Amino acid sequence: MKVEHIKALLSWDQETGAPPLSMQERSEQSELLSSLYYQKATAEGVKEAVSSLCEDDGTCLEDKALIRRWKKYYRTEAMLPETLVSRYAREVSMGQSLWEEAKAKNDYRIFQPQLETLVSLAREKAAIIGKGEKPYDALLDLYEDGMTVRKLDSLFASLAPVVQKLVSAIEEHPPIDDGFLRIPYDVPKLQGFLSWISGCMGFDTQRGGVGVSAHPFTITLGVDDVRITNRFSDPSIFDAIASQIHETGHAIYDQGASTNGKIRGTSLGAGVSMGIHESQSRLWENFLGRSKDFWIFAYPELQKAVTGLKDVSLGQFVLAINKVGRSAIRTNADELTYNLHIILRYELEKKLIDGSLAVKDAAEAWNSMSSMVLGYRPKDYGEGILQDCHWAGGDFGYFPTYVLGNFYAAAFLEQMKKEFDVASALSHGRFSEITRWQNEHIWQKGGILLPEQLCYEATGHVLDAGPFTRYLENKFSNL
Amino acid sequence: MKVEHIKALLSWDQETGAPPLSMQERSEQSELLSSLYYQKATAEGVKEAVSSLCEDDGTCLEDKALIRRWKKYYRTEAMLPETLVSRYAREVSMGQSLWEEAKAKNDYRIFQPQLETLVSLAREKAAIIGKGEKPYDALLDLYEDGMTVRKLDSLFASLAPVVQKLVSAIEEHPPIDDGFLRIPYDVPKLQGFLSWISGCMGFDTQRGGVGVSAHPFTITLGVDDVRITNRFSDPSIFDAIASQIHETGHAIYDQGASTNGKIRGTSLGAGVSMGIHESQSRLWENFLGRSKDFWIFAYPELQKAVTGLKDVSLGQFVLAINKVGRSAIRTNADELTYNLHIILRYELEKKLIDGSLAVKDAAEAWNSMSSMVLGYRPKDYGEGILQDCHWAGGDFGYFPTYVLGNFYAAAFLEQMKKEFDVASALSHGRFSEITRWQNEHIWQKGGILLPEQLCYEATGHVLDAGPFTRYLENKFSNL
Repeated sequence: MKVEHIKALLSWDQETGAPPLSMQERSEQSELLSSLYYQKATAEGVKEAVSSLCEDDGTCLEDKALIRRWKKYYRTEAMLPETLVSRYAREVSMGQSLWEEAKAKNDYRIFQPQLETLVSLAREKAAIIGKGEKPYDALLDLYEDGMTVRKLDSLFASLAPVVQKLVSAIEEHPPIDDGFLRIPYDVPKLQGFLSWISGCMGFDTQRGGVGVSAHPFTITLGVDDVRITNRFSDPSIFDAIASQIHETGHAIYDQGASTNGKIRGTSLGAGVSMGIHESQSRLWENFLGRSKDFWIFAYPELQKAVTGLKDVSLGQFVLAINKVGRSAIRTNADELTYNLHIILRYELEKKLIDGSLAVKDAAEAWNSMSSMVLGYRPKDYGEGILQDCHWAGGDFGYFPTYVLGNFYAAAFLEQMKKEFDVASALSHGRFSEITRWQNEHIWQKGGILLPEQLCYEATGHVLDAGPFTRYLENKFSNL
Repeated sequence: MKVEHIKALLSWDQETGAPPLSMQERSEQSELLSSLYYQKATAEGVKEAVSSLCEDDGTCLEDKALIRRWKKYYRTEAMLPETLVSRYAREVSMGQSLWEEAKAKNDYRIFQPQLETLVSLAREKAAIIGKGEKPYDALLDLYEDGMTVRKLDSLFASLAPVVQKLVSAIEEHPPIDDGFLRIPYDVPKLQGFLSWISGCMGFDTQRGGVGVSAHPFTITLGVDDVRITNRFSDPSIFDAIASQIHETGHAIYDQGASTNGKIRGTSLGAGVSMGIHESQSRLWENFLGRSKDFWIFAYPELQKAVTGLKDVSLGQFVLAINKVGRSAIRTNADELTYNLHIILRYELEKKLIDGSLAVKDAAEAWNSMSSMVLGYRPKDYGEGILQDCHWAGGDFGYFPTYVLGNFYAAAFLEQMKKEFDVASALSHGRFSEITRWQNEHIWQKGGILLPEQLCYEATGHVLDAGPFTRYLENKFSNL
């Protein structure tokens, strides 16, 4: 883990303070560490030792999981020839600058040839490691162990019509006033409030910290060093609040996992998958952090920090932070339509990877898919195919994990509510009742169980769309 | 250089934001990188290739210098057995915590056994690599290529009586009022002023940045990434100003050296030695940055940033920042008595390393030497032997480079004054006339010339105490 943690520090620094012209060297430093990791991990002795083991050789769950994880590594990433890995890194680096330039100039043609290269490399990667039904399965499985197109299609098919129906119903009501969220505020005072909220959620600043970056993120630099960032550039004050709660949700997961002495410091001692990770951040950001109960407790403190909210009632505030509307930008979308943004991207990248959609047609495909799924037609490429950095970063198969997180979070919350009074814990600020459940059922497990097993053991059910659609219907029919 | 730059990032992060409990892992990460560097640098092929070369094989100055540098590395650091290197790292890490504890409790006994270990390891190191007259020479030479006890003794012998005489003369005058420097101020506004000053000195924020840490420092994380820190914890506003100017002086040296394409990215593409580095920082901090000419230009801007200085005249301000007095703490000492603090430490560490002073007697030796040299007897260990972190960090031979920097800076300034009107350049804010001279004669040379050669080529003279003592006499007799 040491090398990965050093690499993480390089990324952290790049996002939070490195000078502009240092980027080239920093990426060379990062490449050096990657190749060091690859060399160590694929050294002959190690590889043979792992091949000679089978999962049942583990004498405890933790050992079995480690063996499973190593075997997966050799079956997937280690199968990729070093030439492909380093080419991927180079093209991604190029992709990111071309994407930035294309976005700034609103000209897809600048990025299109590079996107063609990246899609073709991703397909090559999928073909080498792919054993599933679909090439895209191989990519999904890298972010979410065991996830397939078949399973996702089924989950999304249950979700989409529910969201569509709720959005249409909401549109028949007069729009909610949320203008008071876009007021000037004192950043240090808001940061004080945000630190307090993170503290209530159990974020341990002896083992982590908070920075500022263009886009909020969480990064683990060591078993005792988990950091989050936030931004104060969005006109809405709730942007920073939601980001803080979201990233804290990620951070307390990794901080919790590494307190389990049996897995601490191993590759099991952190969140198990992107989907489960998103469940922890979204549980807090949306399911809890946009609920009235949460704000019964927290709103008086927020009002102290933000004088402009003095005359806004709790009720008005909670309505405003749950305002729903079809809009262009995924990261600013409400809790409900966010899911449609992801479904749109999922449908497109599936087709890009299986070859049924050509990159040259992808911009128009995005726009028409957006009209259809989201009911919003992008006005320019920045609202369309150039909106997100993920593809420029070579990350195909990543987007679905955001909504997977919602499915998991809903399942966890439904189970929690059977076991204790979540509403009362929230409204009285006893957040530790909730984090104790998370810690016991999710964090302490680290990477020991596969995501689906983890969900089954925590909730007693195989994951399906039920909990999340019930949650949405209940919340957005009654708001 | 890549591995060293990554290590530097680890240090930067540790000082500017890493959470308390991350330190253990961070030092393991750093050890991993050190051993990686050692392995690469001492790999058989490399070592043999270097041994087979002689300095004259270089076809240009740069190649000769690179060969010289590598040969020195194999003659010195690479001679140390890996067991000693890793023991040194461990004992230093231990030393730092014991020193902190001892200092907090004002109890030398807590640190004494560890200092014994560290001194004995330093002596072992000196014995292995030492070829000079004295074991201490081997340590000096690691920080300042070619420096010896003989040369330093001679420089310091000329300096000490001049300083003593000037301090005594100043003490006969009524004390200067500098109370207005210790006023509350608006940190962001002062930071604005400091960024402006660094900009005037030519600090390139596209290739560097500024952070906050407990003790100010400069660190080079890449050829295009040189960073400085500052602190705002001292009651005197001039602490932050002097620190900013000092660290910027270091930073523009490294930034300048790496613009020479012939040495950029090599180990020659940075400052040549600690002494020359200190000359660049001290030239700006003291020789220029405490002069009236400097503040004729900069004071109006400072008054805009710090409202409490509105009614303080330029004359009062310049007197205050040059106030002289015998005091306990090196880092807060004035420009004149600072030299005595270093001479005191130099005399003690010479004796610790040659074995004529036992660690158990060192605390008392410090106090009596301080009374004698500095005219101040420490009131506790924190003012005495526990004052600085250097010995706890295993850095013996480092202190003298601070005053060497003064000698070099004075020589450079004397030469500059022969070539152009430095006073006018300062008072009109044309700092680039000065930095252009520095760049041509010092920065662009990087590590190509040995420090003494560099000084000779820049000034036409072998370094002696003359320029510095003349400077001090001229300044402090007339103030």
